[in-house]
Amino acid sequence: MRKIIECVPNFSEGREESTLMALARAIESVPNVTLLGREADIDHHRSVFTMAGEPEAVLEAAIRVVGEAAARIDLTRHRGEHLRLGAADVLPFVPVRGVSLTECVELAWRAGEAIWQRFGVPVYFYEAAAKSPDRVRLEDVRRGQFEGLLQELKAGSGRVPDIGAGQLHPTAGAVIVGARKFLIAYNINLATDRLEIAKAIAKKIRTSSGGLPHVKAMGMMLHSRGLAQVSMNLTDFEQTPVHEVFAAVEREAAAYGVSVAGSELIGFIPRHAVEMGFRAALKFEQFTSGSVLENALDAKLES
Amino acid sequence: MRKIIECVPNFSEGREESTLMALARAIESVPNVTLLGREADIDHHRSVFTMAGEPEAVLEAAIRVVGEAAARIDLTRHRGEHLRLGAADVLPFVPVRGVSLTECVELAWRAGEAIWQRFGVPVYFYEAAAKSPDRVRLEDVRRGQFEGLLQELKAGSGRVPDIGAGQLHPTAGAVIVGARKFLIAYNINLATDRLEIAKAIAKKIRTSSGGLPHVKAMGMMLHSRGLAQVSMNLTDFEQTPVHEVFAAVEREAAAYGVSVAGSELIGFIPRHAVEMGFRAALKFEQFTSGSVLENALDAKLES
Repeated sequence: MRKIIECVPNFSEGREESTLMALARAIESVPNVTLLGREADIDHHRSVFTMAGEPEAVLEAAIRVVGEAAARIDLTRHRGEHLRLGAADVLPFVPVRGVSLTECVELAWRAGEAIWQRFGVPVYFYEAAAKSPDRVRLEDVRRGQFEGLLQELKAGSGRVPDIGAGQLHPTAGAVIVGARKFLIAYNINLATDRLEIAKAIAKKIRTSSGGLPHVKAMGMMLHSRGLAQVSMNLTDFEQTPVHEVFAAVEREAAAYGVSVAGSELIGFIPRHAVEMGFRAALKFEQFTSGSVLENALDAKLES
Repeated sequence: MRKIIECVPNFSEGREESTLMALARAIESVPNVTLLGREADIDHHRSVFTMAGEPEAVLEAAIRVVGEAAARIDLTRHRGEHLRLGAADVLPFVPVRGVSLTECVELAWRAGEAIWQRFGVPVYFYEAAAKSPDRVRLEDVRRGQFEGLLQELKAGSGRVPDIGAGQLHPTAGAVIVGARKFLIAYNINLATDRLEIAKAIAKKIRTSSGGLPHVKAMGMMLHSRGLAQVSMNLTDFEQTPVHEVFAAVEREAAAYGVSVAGSELIGFIPRHAVEMGFRAALKFEQFTSGSVLENALDAKLES
């Protein structure tokens, strides 16, 4: 099976099309890497690129695009609503198929070394790639942002980058490089306009209040349609599958006499999550990836 | 999107391993064709091979394997329980991805011409590739089998092959070549040992008694597990999706106070059927093939 990883760099640029184009070109300059998506937000002055492909190719594309961002984005002139520490701000490596999280941690560390060597941009590691427990959470690493941390480090703070010379880059700051599991952004629309029901369900199912593991959830209002929505991030679909989250929300909604109007994905879902859901919905006793004709064909062709 | 078809030749040989190996080699002699499965039945003295790949490659492999079968299998010495007209008995071309049934009909016709030209084996066309309405059904074409039809044609019957010189091949008979939609062999096990319930449900849902379109179903007993089973062939999963069949059986079973113990596939399921089922189970408002990360990646790489 061909190995596939995803990489989702976030940049402190959401307005200048020529810069966004240059970042896209840097990614696409590497063969066997596919740029799957690009979203830019003017108010946040920030963009998110989604690329995928074979691990070594994605690694090289990730390094190149960080270099491009460092050359083009000057944080001393950047004002946006979104917190940021670097021109290339966050760089997570994500396993998709045939790759472990541990392998993505190794890729993150290699990316960090190369970014410092090639471009002189210092690096912090976060999430699964963190080198110390106090750097696991992105918000802890980014605290104070570019301007604050720049001053703090000059004043001798111990919050020095994991790779670098103890300071931030004067215009590109630092890149926060990491590895994490695939994130599925998944929303369920309720057939009601009562926001409090969506909020109650979100509270009931989310990890932080003792609900399902690996689920972040909040209730919000879809004003355009007059529907309340449970908006979620599923941070480990193999431990807490999408279809189990759907079933939990449907069950909780039923307790309020409310049905599910529909659900939606923001972005992509890995094939394995689809197959897991199909298997469960139809109560298959035996169902593997190889039960799907195209998968069996791909497996034979790749072997 | 890469085009994929399946071809499922049936041969009048289920016992001699050297012959089965030769048939497999004939298929595998064509690049870009994958032999996905091979099943042989000693009592039926018959085997079924499943191959898939790009249309032109599968066409060539199908022609070659028919030639190999005609050279090795002598119907005048063949006695088995299964009805048969040819050494290579049935040769259906099946669309899997990016290919229409009409394209598979064209392939079937081209295969028929080549089989006659290269090997002197006459050809009947059936199902979607039939040249006349009385040859659509396989059982109509095969009526009388090899021995009966051989006599009938010598006596001047009008049941002459669609391609050929008006007679059967003396040892290889004729090949029945066709095109049909993908067949999903799908069984649902009921949490009961009451066979009459499985039979009643099968009767309720199958097309022939006014149930769901494109469903063949019968009730049978899984003696090893003491469970009654609804055993089905779904002959057009895009018109009658697997998940709708599951829901129908589950609903009918519930009316008898019986639950579904589990379900199983015999053979493969196309990816599209899996995605359709997932979409329905989670009530997705928008869900396309491109929502799946690997599909989006494949589409970009192939474009």
